[in-house]
This record gives sequence, structure tokens and C-alpha cells, in this order.
Amino acid sequence: MRLVTFRRAEGGTAVGRIEGEGAADDQVVELQLPDASDVGQLLGQPGWRGVAEQAEGKRHRLGDLDLAPVVPSPSKVICVGLNYRAHILEMGRDLPDFPTLFAKFPETLTGPHDDIPAPPEDVALDWEAELTVVIGTQCRRVSESEAGDHIAGYTVANDISMRSWQFRTKEWLQGKMWEASTPVGPALVTADEWKPGPDVSTAVNGEQMQAATTGDLLFGPEALVSYISTMITLNPGDLILTGTPGGVGRARTPERYLVDGDLVETSIDGLGTLTNRVVAERPQSA
Amino acid sequence: MRLVTFRRAEGGTAVGRIEGEGAADDQVVELQLPDASDVGQLLGQPGWRGVAEQAEGKRHRLGDLDLAPVVPSPSKVICVGLNYRAHILEMGRDLPDFPTLFAKFPETLTGPHDDIPAPPEDVALDWEAELTVVIGTQCRRVSESEAGDHIAGYTVANDISMRSWQFRTKEWLQGKMWEASTPVGPALVTADEWKPGPDVSTAVNGEQMQAATTGDLLFGPEALVSYISTMITLNPGDLILTGTPGGVGRARTPERYLVDGDLVETSIDGLGTLTNRVVAERPQSA
Repeated sequence: MRLVTFRRAEGGTAVGRIEGEGAADDQVVELQLPDASDVGQLLGQPGWRGVAEQAEGKRHRLGDLDLAPVVPSPSKVICVGLNYRAHILEMGRDLPDFPTLFAKFPETLTGPHDDIPAPPEDVALDWEAELTVVIGTQCRRVSESEAGDHIAGYTVANDISMRSWQFRTKEWLQGKMWEASTPVGPALVTADEWKPGPDVSTAVNGEQMQAATTGDLLFGPEALVSYISTMITLNPGDLILTGTPGGVGRARTPERYLVDGDLVETSIDGLGTLTNRVVAERPQSA
Repeated sequence: MRLVTFRRAEGGTAVGRIEGEGAADDQVVELQLPDASDVGQLLGQPGWRGVAEQAEGKRHRLGDLDLAPVVPSPSKVICVGLNYRAHILEMGRDLPDFPTLFAKFPETLTGPHDDIPAPPEDVALDWEAELTVVIGTQCRRVSESEAGDHIAGYTVANDISMRSWQFRTKEWLQGKMWEASTPVGPALVTADEWKPGPDVSTAVNGEQMQAATTGDLLFGPEALVSYISTMITLNPGDLILTGTPGGVGRARTPERYLVDGDLVETSIDGLGTLTNRVVAERPQSA
């Protein structure tokens, strides 16, 4: 099953079930759910799977919908640093014993086809294609073998990073939390329909920049859910961004960053594509 | 004005206004607010100050109340690393140009008098007394001179840190986000009644471990609000933990950590004291 959160023309958001594999012409059923106006809220309801499978409602064409981040307001967004085996080894590093973790906030997320604001404060805007785990049920201190039961499914994120601010200090947060910088979506693909293994890639203006397989993750989804749940309760809709492979702009020679007008496409086979235009931001104080 | 969030005997939480300076015998007025059951929700309402000043309701004795984190579910908790001038200089370091930032999550917070669980996974449980800024109104890209208008007031936090996990990788998050590890409170003291300058201290079993003045902050509240708001919108109830002075357990010779039964008291003059017992956790998988 493929679920999206979309912005309704009349305001607010709604949950949609895609009738198909995610093509623009696929039909989307707008779920009539009194207590859930986005996929995160749906996941918080007991028996969400049956509810989502059976609900009926108005039909839309997928390509006509204005998609929101698939989970717009997760209680937590936890991100993983270097996590692709081949990329770690090619950098001449040892494989780490523990995942490197950092955070984002709900306000950092944006829709899968939204423009990404390029803030005037940092000119080193970089891409990072990432497989993203969506938590389905609350868990704490689950083993790796139990962890799969708590994964609702998977989606794609582009962990856009403001490299100048990221490396102002040793802690990366200030390069990672910029407003509306991280597209997430297009859909939640439930775990019964997709497993890590397929390819992940990024293209900028049609030129391929990243290409790897999600089967190469050093710490896979179950390991990450188990590890993070040792520390803190994971809740339905929480997102885990699992890290990016080689080929980011900062690691290229010469370095290459996103600028006003660039089109960045982040794809994972079977999960879909984020297509975002970079647009220079002209800030106004609020 | 001093506001608390307390847990009602009949379930849920409520906002209380302290009639006094925060002594145990002070009276607390339980505010009758249809749309706000904690201080964070109150701050989200237009004209919250007048509402809180004028509301009347049932009276309680402060010492009889079971206090919750003053803001139990902030949309963001942003923490600052090394930020006390004297401590940075005594460590032989240069004063940094930028604040070091990291995150916590709402589930990481706990009440000002709650027990702090000592997880079996990390035996290096450390204290960090911190002045905490509570955001009052939404802001983005505010100047330092405007920032004060967006500060509702101040409270105290103990940024309890699991040092073994914190230093497993370069990113500190995994030592900083443990469930119910960070007491916050006891009260929000509004910005018209308190300014940085007074002393901050930590005692363990009555022995003083940290002592400094909040006037020694390298990046003060207004500078931090301005800096962080460059990146992301700050919302009412968001918390900024401004960093801790010298005297943490890890920096002592020999190192000293909190163990089962220890009583840790974290105070800022004029804001109040967090009093927490450390209790060994006997986890059950969930």
C-alpha cells in the first residue's frame, strides 16, 4: 500500500491511498478519516492498516495533487551519518561500531515537489539522498528481530545540508535544521511491499550525482530502530533518515553546490522520486 | 509572574500561577483555560500574559503539586554546548565564534522533582545545570535587539548526559536524548521579572559541584534567539538550553558520575531548584 499526505484545495491536508505504483496518472482515494488528516496521524490510530485499506472517498489524479511531507509533524526526526559501507571504505575509514546520529525538527521538512529555499546566509547547499524509515507502532528497547514489527514502511528524503553552517562547529545540527529544507515523500510504501536493496540516486539538472544500493547500509532499518529505541521511545510517524551514499557536492572535486534554479531529483527504486527546484530566498524578518 | 505545569490528581495537566516567589507554602491558582492544559499551550494563545494574570480558579499549595516539565511538549528543544566564558578560558580554549548546537526531543524531558532513570546501558550519568530560555512568540530571522520581545521568560534545566554514549561518535545526540532524563522547571519566570546574571549551581547529595553566574554566558539569550531564528522558525514554548558552566562530573579528577540513590539539585537564583533522585532503571521491553 502507498499512502500520501496532500494539501487540499480547500485548506488543510488529507491522507490518500494510491491505486497503483505511484505514476502521475494513478488514482488516489482521499480517505475519510475523522481523526487523521495526515499519514502521521493515521499511523497513530490502532489498526491503521485495515482502516487505510478499506476507507473510500473522493478520487483524484496523483499528478494533480499538491503533496505535503508524507509525515508533516513527526514527534522526532533522527538522522544517521555515514552509513554506506562502500562509501566509508572508499574514504579510507574503518567501519564504525556505532551509528552517528543527529536531529532535525518538523519545521525542517517540506513536500516532495516543493521548492527548496536557498538561504542567503549559506552558499554551500548540498544534496543527500536517504532511505527513510517510518515508525508504525510505539516501541522502546526492542531487539533487532522485533524491530521490523514497528516499521510502518519506507519513504525518501533529501537531507539538504547547509555545509558552511554545518561545519562552523563540531555538531552538525546547525547545517541540518534549516526551515523547509528537507523534502520527504512522495509516499509511505508499507513494509510488506518494499525492503532495502533497490537503488538510491540523486541527479542535479539531469546529471547523476549519487548512485548506490540501499542494500549496502551498514546499519539497516531494524538495527537503527533497535539502537535508537534503547535511548528513547519511538512513536508512530517518527522518521529515521538512514544516511547517504557517496557523491555529495562537498566531496566532489571541485566542490559543487546547489544554486537558484537547480532541479534536484532524489530517487529510490520502488519508493519514488523527490523533485525539487532550488529557489533563492529573499528573507523578510518575522 | 511564575507559571507552572502540574499533573492533576484526576489525570491530565493544568497551568498554575504561583502567588509568590516559589516557596513550598505559596498558593498556586489553577487557571481555567479551555484550550491550554500546560504552559506551552498557554504561550501559543494570543495575549497569554493577560489571560494568565487575570484567570482565577481552584487554589493549591505549591509544595503539594506534582510538577510536570514546565513545557511538556515543545516543538523544539535546542541546546548549546560550551557557553560559559570563564570555563572555556580555564580549559585553555579560544572563545568560539559560533555557538555549538544540538537537540533534544520532548520525550527527553521530565518534571522538576521526578526521579531520573539511570539506564543500565550507560554508567556515566552526568549533570549539567543550564539556564533555559522559553520562547513566547513565533519568530524567524530576528535581530538581537528584537529577540527579547520573543522571550516569554526563563527556567532551569539539568541537561543530564550519558557520557559513554555521547562520545561513541562525534555527534553528541545519543548521549543527550535519553527518555525522561532532562528535568525542566520548576516554573516559567516571565522576562519582566528575571534577567541573566544570578548564580547557577549544582549539588549532588548536598556537595556543591557547579557554581557560576549566568551573567558569564558567551552567547546570551537574545544572541541565541537571533542566531537560531536565522535557520528555523521559533515557536511559543520552544526551549533553548544555554549551556553549562565548569564542574561537570566528567571533567573532575577522578571522574564522578551519578548513581542509584543520588540526589541532584540544580538551582538558578530567582528561578528555582530542580530536585531529582537518580533511580536505577530495570527496563522491560515494550
